[in-house]
Amino acid sequence: MLSQTTEYALRAMSCLAYSPDELVSTSDLAEVSKVPMNYLAKVLQLLSRAELVTGRRGVGGGYKLARHASEISMLDIIDAIDPIRRIEMCPLGLDNHGVLCPMHRRLDEASRMLIGMFEGTSLQDLLTEAGANRPLCDESMTAKVELTLGTSSTRA
Amino acid sequence: MLSQTTEYALRAMSCLAYSPDELVSTSDLAEVSKVPMNYLAKVLQLLSRAELVTGRRGVGGGYKLARHASEISMLDIIDAIDPIRRIEMCPLGLDNHGVLCPMHRRLDEASRMLIGMFEGTSLQDLLTEAGANRPLCDESMTAKVELTLGTSSTRA
Repeated sequence: MLSQTTEYALRAMSCLAYSPDELVSTSDLAEVSKVPMNYLAKVLQLLSRAELVTGRRGVGGGYKLARHASEISMLDIIDAIDPIRRIEMCPLGLDNHGVLCPMHRRLDEASRMLIGMFEGTSLQDLLTEAGANRPLCDESMTAKVELTLGTSSTRA
Repeated sequence: MLSQTTEYALRAMSCLAYSPDELVSTSDLAEVSKVPMNYLAKVLQLLSRAELVTGRRGVGGGYKLARHASEISMLDIIDAIDPIRRIEMCPLGLDNHGVLCPMHRRLDEASRMLIGMFEGTSLQDLLTEAGANRPLCDESMTAKVELTLGTSSTRA
């Protein structure tokens, strides 16, 4: 439903959210997020254009979030790659479809539902939601991340 | 959210649903559904492979629905082109993500919502739902279609 590129962008942003105060190198980013390097460059370019990340390419370069993870929604990330579009008018340009036909009404309703869902979830929510799992984290990284996020004490 | 090809498939299927008992030529289909001819050939091939349409190519050829419009859901059509996939296991292959992480849980939840929505709507629903509009129909075609579907009397 969402493109592979969008999935990769969500992973890359989650990875950056674990280290908000430092530049993460693209090789570290690729390793943790399991996004192929050539794909990752494209993804970072789109995220940068949408002003969700800042950084620099090249030796010693890297990327970080442009603002706090609580101020970045899943929708912001999705829209930076493949925007979910509402259907505002008849795609066939029919004059008598000022009100959408049942087919396009259903498709628009689906977009509306997705937008609402992804708009209401921040990157921070994905990292801190109660539960055993953290995005991208195997067991050892989970333990490390719990310390960074300070969530282990609240869950003890 | 859904691909352009999927939108075209939904249009082509709606067009065929208005004439369930006859082969519709690809040129008529292209004109009514406003799907470019080269795109339409690809769409019909995929719909045919999914056993949603039957027909034949070439002079005097055309296509019709393989079964009644009430027995074809929007999901059947969407799945014939770009299937909406549930996320059954961690796409990163992480051992400790037997239960999905919050990110993939959200993405799976979105797929689940869409599947439920499109599964519950048949092609027939799109054609006969109460309202002023019919898919693909301008004003003159609407009048013609109301007679075919026999819905005008019930709405008078």
